[in-house]
Amino acid sequence: MDIKPVLNMVGTLAVFLGLLMLIPMSISVCSRQGDAWSFFLGAAVAVGLGLLIKRGSHTSKEPGIKESFAIVTLGWVIAAALGALPFVISGACPTYSDAFFEAMSGLTTTGATVIGNIEAQPNGILFWRSFLHWLGGMGIIVLFIAVLPGAGIGGSRLFKAEVPGPLPERIVPRIKETAKTLWLIYVGFTVVETVLLCLGGMGFFDSVNHAFATMATGGFSTKAASVGAWTSPGIHWIIAVFMLLAGVNFTLYFRALSGRSLRVFFHDAEFKFYVSLIITATVLVTLNLFVSGNFRSLAEAFRHSAFQVVSIITTTGFTTVDFDMWPSFSKAILMTLMFIGGCAGSTAGAIKVGRILVLLKHGYKEIFQFIYPRAVTLPKINGSPVPHGMQNTICAFFFLYIFTFIGAAIIMTGFGLDLVSACSAVAATLGNVGPGLVVVGPTLTYQPIPALGKWVLSACMLLGRLELFTVLVLFIPDFWRRG
Amino acid sequence: MDIKPVLNMVGTLAVFLGLLMLIPMSISVCSRQGDAWSFFLGAAVAVGLGLLIKRGSHTSKEPGIKESFAIVTLGWVIAAALGALPFVISGACPTYSDAFFEAMSGLTTTGATVIGNIEAQPNGILFWRSFLHWLGGMGIIVLFIAVLPGAGIGGSRLFKAEVPGPLPERIVPRIKETAKTLWLIYVGFTVVETVLLCLGGMGFFDSVNHAFATMATGGFSTKAASVGAWTSPGIHWIIAVFMLLAGVNFTLYFRALSGRSLRVFFHDAEFKFYVSLIITATVLVTLNLFVSGNFRSLAEAFRHSAFQVVSIITTTGFTTVDFDMWPSFSKAILMTLMFIGGCAGSTAGAIKVGRILVLLKHGYKEIFQFIYPRAVTLPKINGSPVPHGMQNTICAFFFLYIFTFIGAAIIMTGFGLDLVSACSAVAATLGNVGPGLVVVGPTLTYQPIPALGKWVLSACMLLGRLELFTVLVLFIPDFWRRG
Repeated sequence: MDIKPVLNMVGTLAVFLGLLMLIPMSISVCSRQGDAWSFFLGAAVAVGLGLLIKRGSHTSKEPGIKESFAIVTLGWVIAAALGALPFVISGACPTYSDAFFEAMSGLTTTGATVIGNIEAQPNGILFWRSFLHWLGGMGIIVLFIAVLPGAGIGGSRLFKAEVPGPLPERIVPRIKETAKTLWLIYVGFTVVETVLLCLGGMGFFDSVNHAFATMATGGFSTKAASVGAWTSPGIHWIIAVFMLLAGVNFTLYFRALSGRSLRVFFHDAEFKFYVSLIITATVLVTLNLFVSGNFRSLAEAFRHSAFQVVSIITTTGFTTVDFDMWPSFSKAILMTLMFIGGCAGSTAGAIKVGRILVLLKHGYKEIFQFIYPRAVTLPKINGSPVPHGMQNTICAFFFLYIFTFIGAAIIMTGFGLDLVSACSAVAATLGNVGPGLVVVGPTLTYQPIPALGKWVLSACMLLGRLELFTVLVLFIPDFWRRG
Repeated sequence: MDIKPVLNMVGTLAVFLGLLMLIPMSISVCSRQGDAWSFFLGAAVAVGLGLLIKRGSHTSKEPGIKESFAIVTLGWVIAAALGALPFVISGACPTYSDAFFEAMSGLTTTGATVIGNIEAQPNGILFWRSFLHWLGGMGIIVLFIAVLPGAGIGGSRLFKAEVPGPLPERIVPRIKETAKTLWLIYVGFTVVETVLLCLGGMGFFDSVNHAFATMATGGFSTKAASVGAWTSPGIHWIIAVFMLLAGVNFTLYFRALSGRSLRVFFHDAEFKFYVSLIITATVLVTLNLFVSGNFRSLAEAFRHSAFQVVSIITTTGFTTVDFDMWPSFSKAILMTLMFIGGCAGSTAGAIKVGRILVLLKHGYKEIFQFIYPRAVTLPKINGSPVPHGMQNTICAFFFLYIFTFIGAAIIMTGFGLDLVSACSAVAATLGNVGPGLVVVGPTLTYQPIPALGKWVLSACMLLGRLELFTVLVLFIPDFWRRG
């Protein structure tokens, strides 16, 4: 690996992030809550450090395959490290470990927070949290490629390293146009949701923040009670629908827009499976909650079930009620959804519906081959067979995901957490969901976790967001060999 | 599928099992505890039913591939159904659901019990529990092939359907000889353990029962406190060592015996990984228990840790202490071991060390290919590459195992179990381990689980013991088509 192009790119990214901090700074200036200087200082450090790094690593070399992985992983770590500055400088987070956790949780669209007194935070900080979600949701590197001039073949590699999903496809021939198109659709949805939330009775500032956190499938709210702070069913439904939309493969929107037809959705196996999972889970949870007497009316049980199911499967993590109080059947379904996640090519995290679909078809094929050993078939998705290599990668992704989950959960129990807290905390961070159960339940924060545990969970968030491989390649000894 | 050869074989199996019931009956007669008639009745029903089935399905046709799977699955269900009769007739189990659960738990070497007042049971019943373990451990069909005359090509298929492990190999050319050799090694170990336990101070009857349950990696004890009823460290160590031996691939013993050298063990990747897993887990649990103050001396912490680690990874399920009282770190490690299980070709259950090894190597290869996309390599075990087809089957086995676990755990929460109880009950039955946590903890029984839940868990035991595929093929619509 050649370190110069890596540092060069990461330096640019730091400058870029520093400049982006001027947006929450201007909000702080307007709202006069005295936290503007924390963004100013943060921006100064980011820009200064970025320029310093760039200065020492001037090169005209395009990053190769290895360098792309290093840029994306290091870029995300640096972005979280710098993004943490305003949190610790303003005093929103007492320690740097907390601030890093919060920034990583923001960027990776996890939405797990260590800040308990949300309502006491200045607008600038609240905005910064949602804004980090929004930047990380579609991908900072993707934004970078869309915005910066001259990202060629290197840009394509970076794109692939940040969005390694099982079925990534360029929607337009040039990678820069792809990045731009994705971001435009993303901005469009965000604007529409903001308007609808305002119309639904939410204030403008809260609407913007919640639209950011929804479309990024993040989950940070401007209220400690999350979306539950609003009692209006209308607001719950608007957010639920937009979470569902954010969990769909964005290339489908592009194809629907360019073909002016909604048929692409109903011809997409992953979308159909995603919707049927949501319907099945909602029906089961609704019935369970209604029968257990958690809600008096079926309509109310349905609304909260649908909201929570969509919030968890899309790995957003917004809550309207404390689902830790629900019967264990409902909790078990939500825990399962934490692992499934949204569609590939969406802003959602976790394993992704598309991968689960391939695994199920692969499993069926294997069972079939037990009785017809000579039948050689490849599982098909949308009519075309899944290539052998992709199948292998998906299988590997699945068990590496499970192994990572188990390893991290064992480590978390080492910090004294009970089994359910440890497992749900890891599932919720690795899947970029946010709230877990018991100690890290929906009404609580990750504050009580020891500092070292927060670093472990931060690593889980990064592993989950970059879909394991982009981070794991760094642990292959050959990676660090030159060339 | 052709039903006649299936029924013919299953009928013979029923007769065979009926005759085997005469062994516990003779013990009952000797011990004069008045339960002999329950075995007599059970045997009569089994033999009668078996002859009736055989009469209606006379055929000279050899079973084909599909028929073999049907024979093994149906054979195991019938064996549990008939094996349950003495439990319910003698009154050891209050309902048939309980008795079926107990018999299935015995045959599949799970060792999960619904009988609380173990010490109040007559010797015949206690022996029948251990004997079911012992029959199921090496496989009733394998025994069948070893004992019955004229098992040819059909026998080979049956053998494969009952022992579908990832690396099954015939150790001698003829399948009948293979089955005989395996059983001989198995009998040899059982005799040696019985003698050692007697010398260690355990009574003869208890020694035989515990040797049966150890070598089958079953876990039923003649005491409610399991092996903890004996305080002698010697007895703990004897059982721990034999559990460890039972978790090793039996073909290694054959090769060591025929080659008169222990080198085969140290050249076997799976064996080395199995031993290192046990050492790592034991060290971690010992330190955790000692630091947490669960035991006053390091030696005592080590003994109980080693015993419990070996008992769980080999999926035996014997206990010397109530590990549900241990810190969550130790419990998390034990829960993980429940999924790993022993070596392929051993009497242990769960996923198996060999499969985990292939998955880890496959995962490393995939990460490697991310940076060297053109490098095409197959993971190697013991120097030879793992064929593509086997790799696919192992991947499918892994996620089907995880999916089955999740599905069954969700169903169990539907019966009102908390998350930890539900997950550990399913992990412990699917992995043929036995004791779980909380409601189904080591000092408790599965009695409080509702009848329907017991049937679900019984299905898990069968799925686990027959390694999923043999049972799952029955759910493929094509399976039931003729030919």
